[in-house]
Amino acid sequence: MSVLAINGERLWSTLMEMAQIGGTAKGGCNRQALTDEDKIGRELFIGWCKDIGCTLRVDQMGNMFLRMAGQDNSLAPVITGSHLDTQPTGGKFDGVYGVLAGLEVLRTLHDAGITPLRPIEVAVWTNEEGARFSPAMVGSGVWCGEFDLEYGLSRTDKQGVSIKEALEKIGFLGDEPCKPFPVKAAFELHIEQGPILESLEKPIGVVKGVQGMRWYDLIIDGQPVHAGPTPMEQRRDPFMAQSAIVTELYALAAEYSPLARATFGDIKAEPGSRNTVPARITLAVDLRHPDQTILDEMDAKFREIAKNACEKFNLDFEIKDEWNSPAVEFDKTCVDAMRESVQEKGYAFEEMFSGAGHDSVYTSRVIPTSMIFIPCEKGISHNEAENATPEDIEAGCNVLLGAMLKVANSAE
Amino acid sequence: MSVLAINGERLWSTLMEMAQIGGTAKGGCNRQALTDEDKIGRELFIGWCKDIGCTLRVDQMGNMFLRMAGQDNSLAPVITGSHLDTQPTGGKFDGVYGVLAGLEVLRTLHDAGITPLRPIEVAVWTNEEGARFSPAMVGSGVWCGEFDLEYGLSRTDKQGVSIKEALEKIGFLGDEPCKPFPVKAAFELHIEQGPILESLEKPIGVVKGVQGMRWYDLIIDGQPVHAGPTPMEQRRDPFMAQSAIVTELYALAAEYSPLARATFGDIKAEPGSRNTVPARITLAVDLRHPDQTILDEMDAKFREIAKNACEKFNLDFEIKDEWNSPAVEFDKTCVDAMRESVQEKGYAFEEMFSGAGHDSVYTSRVIPTSMIFIPCEKGISHNEAENATPEDIEAGCNVLLGAMLKVANSAE
Repeated sequence: MSVLAINGERLWSTLMEMAQIGGTAKGGCNRQALTDEDKIGRELFIGWCKDIGCTLRVDQMGNMFLRMAGQDNSLAPVITGSHLDTQPTGGKFDGVYGVLAGLEVLRTLHDAGITPLRPIEVAVWTNEEGARFSPAMVGSGVWCGEFDLEYGLSRTDKQGVSIKEALEKIGFLGDEPCKPFPVKAAFELHIEQGPILESLEKPIGVVKGVQGMRWYDLIIDGQPVHAGPTPMEQRRDPFMAQSAIVTELYALAAEYSPLARATFGDIKAEPGSRNTVPARITLAVDLRHPDQTILDEMDAKFREIAKNACEKFNLDFEIKDEWNSPAVEFDKTCVDAMRESVQEKGYAFEEMFSGAGHDSVYTSRVIPTSMIFIPCEKGISHNEAENATPEDIEAGCNVLLGAMLKVANSAE
Repeated sequence: MSVLAINGERLWSTLMEMAQIGGTAKGGCNRQALTDEDKIGRELFIGWCKDIGCTLRVDQMGNMFLRMAGQDNSLAPVITGSHLDTQPTGGKFDGVYGVLAGLEVLRTLHDAGITPLRPIEVAVWTNEEGARFSPAMVGSGVWCGEFDLEYGLSRTDKQGVSIKEALEKIGFLGDEPCKPFPVKAAFELHIEQGPILESLEKPIGVVKGVQGMRWYDLIIDGQPVHAGPTPMEQRRDPFMAQSAIVTELYALAAEYSPLARATFGDIKAEPGSRNTVPARITLAVDLRHPDQTILDEMDAKFREIAKNACEKFNLDFEIKDEWNSPAVEFDKTCVDAMRESVQEKGYAFEEMFSGAGHDSVYTSRVIPTSMIFIPCEKGISHNEAENATPEDIEAGCNVLLGAMLKVANSAE
């Protein structure tokens, strides 16, 4: 069994063939959810699966499940998968790799004449990117019960086309109920979309969970006065608190290093006149940690830091909670299966947390789930320059094969 | 002579009458430069001056000089004045007070039958506010040689109407050369437009000069990465430098307290996505000090602070010089005359610097100039809520009368 290995060249060539559908001049991909390109991509993938005897189910959100029968089809399947849709200027690997690696696992088993005890399925989730329809991960979100079906189907793109209409148009509005079915284990293989593995020169990341994320708008109100006449000590200047708070939040992230993150992606000053102290500053704050207890501590300290700074500088403030995504701890059995598989193959690996959202965040709520990462060049993703090496692509898929086969052959 | 005093009630009522021209529902004034309202305001003022025997000269920029003859009209006149134009939602006092206080000085002398040795003139400068035509203070700017005449006349408003066309339309394109003539002393009386006098409970500010001001755009370039996966220590995050630089510039202002100012009126983060470290931050920096040597030091230290912070956080930066207005030291003889006058009247006063630009900044380059301030409510200006007390309005004009009469009666 230890000699079974996937065909790296074949996997790479399916990735490159899929990348031509919606391929961009700069070598990226524009295959947004439920477009004609998505339809062509889905059909190409289905054809490949059917060639090796898989059967297709499509659910009410257009999520697809390609099933290879096992020896005992009454047992819950092992599933893997990700998404085929891309950003408008996306890359060739984000999502697609997880889907086509699943296909490569099936092809490898098929070619070797191996039928595992359990059935194996490859899942393709609808609209993971959220580029055409908001919110992101809506296919897996409805499936796991985060959103109801009506909400999911009624999301519209900028032209007012709903997901339901778009699914009908491309022929992927299925009739399978969009809800969880028994699954033994779910694995998602994905490029890291960050720089950690590359910098560690390790090909595999065993992903133990997903960072908890909290998004806030911090609004600081002061008094708009003329930059010239007003003495500094008489000012109520929102920048005095902003600079102090940002500095303290970086210190807070350092305190919970190396896993904490503090990011300020946007800021606005009003009225925004060069020679007037702003009346208001609105700062976007993004705090993350994979341990929910620590993230809760960071949340409490952020509120204290903001309060103290605004009191010190005689300013009013408000913290608006914009998003709260609790930390996700992946299923221990799934993570163990992944660790065991990578150790069997002998690859260097890092145990880590995902910093980005994935369909697995939603599936992990209802079925045993974990993820595996491979490095991507410079950590770049959501970009036409997204890249990964054939060696890492192959390594990740071999780890996936090992883990899936082990679970698929276990009756318990 | 010490019993001569202006008529406070009369001055107040001329202010209120002028305020009706372009008067707004909220009690402010919209009498922008060279509009029909400005024409009506100018004509009202000219009428009042002619009633007491003054003569009018209008120059090529529409600057007006209302002259009361002296005993020896070969001597250089003493002048005072300011501007009649307002912001779109301006107040009743900014500029107008300086003009009508000049009128009140002339009326007081006229009523008392006093003809000073030197002629006295009240100047009304065109487009001080810069609200309709940019730049501000363009009338006094051309007069003193900062701008040439063609530049001044060709400035256009948002509808494309030039100053020349607007002057012709309202009948104030004069033929007097727009250039300096011999002046013994020029005084400008103005509301403070800041909170200092009010907080000190002093009715008079003897203004010794104007802050030097430097405007910069500080551009900090980093690397846009995803807020989740990228470890803090691998980031090139412009906010790390921004918060440090802002904090250090406040410390720099404190070091040169109480006269230094550091203001950040605007900031922009690009691409401005909540969960992406910004690629670029552009911060508007405004540094001021009345002592040019110190302002130069602040400038040098700012550059050093920016360099060190950006080096520390591995960021690129650029400092764009947007404006550089050197510190102005008013004429010592003029300042002394003002101080002497206020001491004679017995008012409490503060020696101070102007934090805002005024026509006197330009006139001071070519003729002996100084200013005098009175408090305005909460320091508010450029606002319909702009307010000043009748007592302070009267006090300021009495100080002006004393200083002007003294200089106007001196042959030297």
